[in-house]
Amino acid sequence: MTKIFNSPADFSDDQFEGFLDIYSDRLRGVAGGAVALRTGVPQVAVVIGGGSGHYPAFAGLVGTGFATGAVVGNIFTSPSAAQVYSVAKAANQGLGVVLSFGNYAGDNMNFGIAAEHLRKEGIDTRIVVVTDDIASSDDEEKRRGIAGDFTVFKVMGAAAAAGLDLDGVERAGRSANQATRTLGVAFSGCTMPGADKPLFEVPEGHLGLGLGIHGEPGISDEAMPTASALSEMLVEKLLKSVPIGAGKKVGVVLNGLGTTKYEELFLLWAPVAKRLRNAGLELVDVEVGELVTSLDMGGTSLTLMWLDEELEAFWKADAYTPAYRKQAAPVAALEAFGQAGAEAEQETAAAPTFSEASAQLAASVVAGLEIMAATLHQHEQRLGEIDAVAGDGDHGRGMVKGIDAALQAATSASDGGAGAAWVLQRAGQAWAEKAGGTSGVLWGAALEAAGTSLENDRSRYSPRDYVAAAHAFADAILELGRATIGDKTLVDAMLPFTESLAGSVAGGRDFAAAWQGAAAVATEQATATAALSPKLGRARPLAAKSVGTPDAGATSLALLVTALASLPTPALLS
Amino acid sequence: MTKIFNSPADFSDDQFEGFLDIYSDRLRGVAGGAVALRTGVPQVAVVIGGGSGHYPAFAGLVGTGFATGAVVGNIFTSPSAAQVYSVAKAANQGLGVVLSFGNYAGDNMNFGIAAEHLRKEGIDTRIVVVTDDIASSDDEEKRRGIAGDFTVFKVMGAAAAAGLDLDGVERAGRSANQATRTLGVAFSGCTMPGADKPLFEVPEGHLGLGLGIHGEPGISDEAMPTASALSEMLVEKLLKSVPIGAGKKVGVVLNGLGTTKYEELFLLWAPVAKRLRNAGLELVDVEVGELVTSLDMGGTSLTLMWLDEELEAFWKADAYTPAYRKQAAPVAALEAFGQAGAEAEQETAAAPTFSEASAQLAASVVAGLEIMAATLHQHEQRLGEIDAVAGDGDHGRGMVKGIDAALQAATSASDGGAGAAWVLQRAGQAWAEKAGGTSGVLWGAALEAAGTSLENDRSRYSPRDYVAAAHAFADAILELGRATIGDKTLVDAMLPFTESLAGSVAGGRDFAAAWQGAAAVATEQATATAALSPKLGRARPLAAKSVGTPDAGATSLALLVTALASLPTPALLS
Repeated sequence: MTKIFNSPADFSDDQFEGFLDIYSDRLRGVAGGAVALRTGVPQVAVVIGGGSGHYPAFAGLVGTGFATGAVVGNIFTSPSAAQVYSVAKAANQGLGVVLSFGNYAGDNMNFGIAAEHLRKEGIDTRIVVVTDDIASSDDEEKRRGIAGDFTVFKVMGAAAAAGLDLDGVERAGRSANQATRTLGVAFSGCTMPGADKPLFEVPEGHLGLGLGIHGEPGISDEAMPTASALSEMLVEKLLKSVPIGAGKKVGVVLNGLGTTKYEELFLLWAPVAKRLRNAGLELVDVEVGELVTSLDMGGTSLTLMWLDEELEAFWKADAYTPAYRKQAAPVAALEAFGQAGAEAEQETAAAPTFSEASAQLAASVVAGLEIMAATLHQHEQRLGEIDAVAGDGDHGRGMVKGIDAALQAATSASDGGAGAAWVLQRAGQAWAEKAGGTSGVLWGAALEAAGTSLENDRSRYSPRDYVAAAHAFADAILELGRATIGDKTLVDAMLPFTESLAGSVAGGRDFAAAWQGAAAVATEQATATAALSPKLGRARPLAAKSVGTPDAGATSLALLVTALASLPTPALLS
Repeated sequence: MTKIFNSPADFSDDQFEGFLDIYSDRLRGVAGGAVALRTGVPQVAVVIGGGSGHYPAFAGLVGTGFATGAVVGNIFTSPSAAQVYSVAKAANQGLGVVLSFGNYAGDNMNFGIAAEHLRKEGIDTRIVVVTDDIASSDDEEKRRGIAGDFTVFKVMGAAAAAGLDLDGVERAGRSANQATRTLGVAFSGCTMPGADKPLFEVPEGHLGLGLGIHGEPGISDEAMPTASALSEMLVEKLLKSVPIGAGKKVGVVLNGLGTTKYEELFLLWAPVAKRLRNAGLELVDVEVGELVTSLDMGGTSLTLMWLDEELEAFWKADAYTPAYRKQAAPVAALEAFGQAGAEAEQETAAAPTFSEASAQLAASVVAGLEIMAATLHQHEQRLGEIDAVAGDGDHGRGMVKGIDAALQAATSASDGGAGAAWVLQRAGQAWAEKAGGTSGVLWGAALEAAGTSLENDRSRYSPRDYVAAAHAFADAILELGRATIGDKTLVDAMLPFTESLAGSVAGGRDFAAAWQGAAAVATEQATATAALSPKLGRARPLAAKSVGTPDAGATSLALLVTALASLPTPALLS
């Protein structure tokens, strides 16, 4: 939803004022839009435009090697003929003007009227209409212009910068349009400034195939696919629409409509690229990002421009505008250096020798990790919710990632023949490596330290050894995390647990009973953290919001030690 | 909401695969992240990082003049020490490594462990932690790192590219961090891939002041301000937090969190810039855009870096990365040329001479436009809703903009003394100029044509003259719009209206009665367009969705001619 404005009616003018302020060193505002400051050599003026709400289209594409001027209409509304005329007149450098825009009735009329007006004054004016949206019509001339605006404008901007005359720039533009095809999908509608609901809605769990860029709904609703299936949907249809005489090289734009994140576009790009290459295409200068948007709409479109020699040169040419900057030189200056990437140091050394007792204990370690994994998977969502109250909500997911990696590493080490210490060390290393984050590094280091304390070569293990391992676990967390009791961290459950366990065992209590008692203490103390205010970590700045909710790390620790009480382990009690 | 993924658990890895494919000509993937291809001359390695979900931070900032490598953790999760170690080792060019990241517990631990590991291998490794978020703590060292990551990393990247040694790059980084302050606001929370609700929600009509970039809620909820009041909120608080010894030059970043549009950021920039300049600050190389994001979160933050001579040079230096490209040369090559912008041609000629009858009729024209304005304001929302079914929903707004401009121009012309033809011509010109779009150009040209047909110098006006004006109105629309009956446009109501009016008047019927009859026909025909399938315009690709809803343009025309029947006009009947 559009949130920042003063008066919704002034949105378009107000945003343009800020834009002009930022880029006053390279362009200037004129009535109706903006024109680029000139380089020394006059060139054909390429004047693009349409409504607002499509940034970087259209004003963000004004600059060296791209558009000479942009006409800026109201949101999703064609600029008036007077605006087009004004910008074209200011952009003209004496060599004529090409007006270019997407194929919509209002733009056709207003740009058309302006062109008549300019010609009457002796300014040679041509029109290149962009018609790339294959979903909008089977008749190529009736198609809407969507993200193909970008490729067509880019080619004309480069052609003008290269010194082509008006005929040449117009011809290059028509050639680019004929070579360009786009298909898009909408995930969610856009909301006009000040409106309280979007212009359209996509049904839950669906996408709109064949999007528009003015809040028009998709042409048909389809079930929301995976990224891989989405790539198939886009590529297959585009490849059924190859222009006549097309070669094997394509310029590519994977465009985001506004609220579809760059990460999502990158994710989609991987299977799109594979499919395009599998079809025998050579991908030239791929652009993935927000290039022609539609306010806060969610969606993406794939544009292919089949390249001949001339189009390839113009597509690859340098450009420098507020929103789009491309320079060959910095990339050309790089040298591909041969050094292989340093890999995270995997333990390649074989497991150390180990005793029979240690091997038995290793089986119990794996069984314990299995119990922990089941517990964390069961409580993943709840732990995330607790963490989200004042933190970032990733505790559940992080713990699950960690235990899954730890269990896998431990099972592998145990299956390969290893003692308990080694198995637990490997589990800790894998946890830290795969989970990352605060809990990952703490749990990883703690498990590794517990493993180290157990040693692989003892002839037997006693409850005192397990208490020592628990102390080693706790010490690692205290050293790394630097939290103390009362800081509202897992330490608030961990230290009382360790003390209770150690005290009971020292007092001669049965180990299983001692563990159960300590787990009950941990649970009680974890619950009590709800009253505390956090002193460390991401929750600290949100201390007030945190009060009333227990600490996620203390909660997961209590859940785990409670579950481990059920471990049926002769080895633990041997 | 995050929509594109295969398995949510693989989001981070999958998106990184696509990213690496796109930019394989300038960086390469290593275990744990990415490193830039080298230029010929070795430099200190600046290795940045943190969790995923912040694009362009962190991998998008790897390149010439910026970071040497980026460590890429899971979403919002610190990378593991093993990942940091791996990337740093690959990035090191023999001159040592600076590790830099935002101040979070997990990052501090994992980068810290990696640094120890690197140092043990003889790689001199320094750490620069970013602490720019003034909302997160009064204690500068405890502050979180948010968008200030960008300024601090940029300075270190430039320092390394400039050939500074490890001490120098570390010092520049610490200096940049000490000079950098950020404050942000959240409009809406972000949603983890696969989750069905956001990590936090901002109450309706509010914002969260003091945002985090990992889905942490704001520190306090405030009523949603206008853009101007928001600029005050951000600037005032930042200017209470000026670093000791700060000068008057600042580097500025107005950052978008993910779903806050560039247009919104530009709109906010205008009042922010005014306030900063009013405070005596000189703004150096302003960056407005998405630089440190938080998945699909809505929000913005303002970062100021107070510049000394060294920081200014590094802030302004060239850089070339996937997401951030800055080159002085293309801007330096521009010449500010003096030609004033061509203004849209305002009528500067005085109104032509006019008859008494024409002056009387002018008053009726203004009264008629007033009725039209009231009608369109009343029905603006409904017209928008009708249009949104298969179009872009702007019909109501466009008509209101047009009539408001037309009424203002007509009133001004009439007040200044003018005949009916001139008043109506001016109204039409203003409508087309201010409204833009399809309806704007059609209504503008039609009113202008109707005015022209009336002439200013007649001694009297008869019903036949009004019929001629209605024909002129219709002819202008037919010529420009090229629609015919049945295409589902305003023509479907307009032509039956004109024919009915002309027929009744020719048959000697009283003009008011003739108009009322024609208006009834128009209303009937407008309603009947619901059964039609559109043949032209933006609604055409969505023809199937359109059936069942009347055409917005035909509907507004019928509403207007119906309302105009109430015009109490002696002049019309004179």
